[in-house]
Amino acid sequence: MSTRNLSEKSITKAVIARNSKAESARFKTVITSLVKNLHRFARDVKLTEDEWNYGIDFLTRTGQLCSDKRQEFILLSDTLGLSTLVTQLNHHSRGKETEQTVFGPFHREKAPVYAMGDNISKGIRGVPCFVSGKISDAKGKPIAGAVLDVWHSDDDGAYDVQRAEWKGAMRMRGVFKPGPDGKFHLRTVRPKYYPVPTDGPTGELLKAAARHPMRPAHIHFMVNAKGYDRLVTHVFVKGDEYIDSDAVFGVRDSLISKFKMHKAGKAPDGTVVRTPYCTLHYDFVMRPAKKAGKKDGARKK
Amino acid sequence: MSTRNLSEKSITKAVIARNSKAESARFKTVITSLVKNLHRFARDVKLTEDEWNYGIDFLTRTGQLCSDKRQEFILLSDTLGLSTLVTQLNHHSRGKETEQTVFGPFHREKAPVYAMGDNISKGIRGVPCFVSGKISDAKGKPIAGAVLDVWHSDDDGAYDVQRAEWKGAMRMRGVFKPGPDGKFHLRTVRPKYYPVPTDGPTGELLKAAARHPMRPAHIHFMVNAKGYDRLVTHVFVKGDEYIDSDAVFGVRDSLISKFKMHKAGKAPDGTVVRTPYCTLHYDFVMRPAKKAGKKDGARKK
Repeated sequence: MSTRNLSEKSITKAVIARNSKAESARFKTVITSLVKNLHRFARDVKLTEDEWNYGIDFLTRTGQLCSDKRQEFILLSDTLGLSTLVTQLNHHSRGKETEQTVFGPFHREKAPVYAMGDNISKGIRGVPCFVSGKISDAKGKPIAGAVLDVWHSDDDGAYDVQRAEWKGAMRMRGVFKPGPDGKFHLRTVRPKYYPVPTDGPTGELLKAAARHPMRPAHIHFMVNAKGYDRLVTHVFVKGDEYIDSDAVFGVRDSLISKFKMHKAGKAPDGTVVRTPYCTLHYDFVMRPAKKAGKKDGARKK
Repeated sequence: MSTRNLSEKSITKAVIARNSKAESARFKTVITSLVKNLHRFARDVKLTEDEWNYGIDFLTRTGQLCSDKRQEFILLSDTLGLSTLVTQLNHHSRGKETEQTVFGPFHREKAPVYAMGDNISKGIRGVPCFVSGKISDAKGKPIAGAVLDVWHSDDDGAYDVQRAEWKGAMRMRGVFKPGPDGKFHLRTVRPKYYPVPTDGPTGELLKAAARHPMRPAHIHFMVNAKGYDRLVTHVFVKGDEYIDSDAVFGVRDSLISKFKMHKAGKAPDGTVVRTPYCTLHYDFVMRPAKKAGKKDGARKK
């Protein structure tokens, strides 16, 4: 097939034909749909050259903002609803199993490993928060050997990476390894609602769309356990004012929980707390992993 | 509209509704179609989380490869046929006017300005090439004050920016300012076919698609003239072995021209050339600019 003199109509078939010799059937499926839908978008809106230029520049700036402390493309995917779409495609809600939600741009690899009960927010201002729960399967059987990864914002709505004065230190995040009973407990501070970072291209988009950048307060949890699907989720603070307008579309009723307030006094871990504090109890129910089947992803090594 | 518990079906409407308060009607049109088509793609292929992760990483690496010497997002757009699609949407071929083609990733701002007849490839190995032509409107009337920007690859198919040993020097590129007769002539070396850069994400895509990365030999031209549409085009070398399989889908019959070979001797500019040389004559016909109308692009300042 010659590919001279392509018009805005014939170009799509020509590109698809050019990709048709791909070895991986899955890659061919993905790239074909990508080309079709990308071209459909450009034709649909009659994309101008200025807009194309703006798009190239927007994507370039998005990539260049990414670092080990910030993932602006994930944030873009989140605010465009793509992340929730992909979560839902891959983790349909089902029975008792804990629902999943977006991963978000603030997870960091190699967070400190804590002993059960430890305080991941030592010295950080805020309402003390005692978190406890259990990791089990749908029948309530504890899952031994699960690894729990926790991360969240502080009382001002900032993550550690957003505090330049902390110079990269990992705070309000950590890894816990429950024992055979699947139970965990830890101390931290109550998280607060916050704006997603608006100083980059995603902020530009939100501004153009006249959207607020706020996320309702939540704690991120990730649970990895052999034989089970990785669970990526949040627990949201019940009553948060942004609970119905999350900038990244991640809220699910089953993930909203009361962060119960208590008077100063003896806390659940036996220590005495001199200010009012709160407690959160949330149990995570894991889904057994799918049997390994033929998987031919577009992912390349 | 609450946006809790969104499914892979309801998410699209929710995101579109969230963007519906945008001030600019054009922005709303563009973002609505973008969200629809992006979501349609993900649903269509049931995008997996591994693939989504790969996509985030692919886009991030693409952005991070961009510099003042390389534009990997333009290259990606080129190889996906998006650039040709946008060119065609905005510059339908019409009568005698020179056809446009893709801009490509190798243009550089502030190339040296040359005097008419200058050699833009001094000291560079290759078949000497004498280029001449005229810039006029469709009636043949010369356009005074046009500015001609020229750039191309060398006899090995490399652009200056791909020659680390040249340390950023601008070679085989330059700006010419024809006089009131619209005529131009210059000396350079004959360009050669070449592979688009394959050491980045775009190369990964081409490899997965089992596509060759070659572009048929060409010289890039851009003409700017007050009162006329900016002309962005190439002139391709007739007979090139990749003329029917350009990796970026840019070839048009009207842009293919003979680079005519001559024996050593007196060249068109009066100098004596001791090796065989070639000549290219190509006239550029400009399109009058559209009257300024309402233009409400997504571009923001």
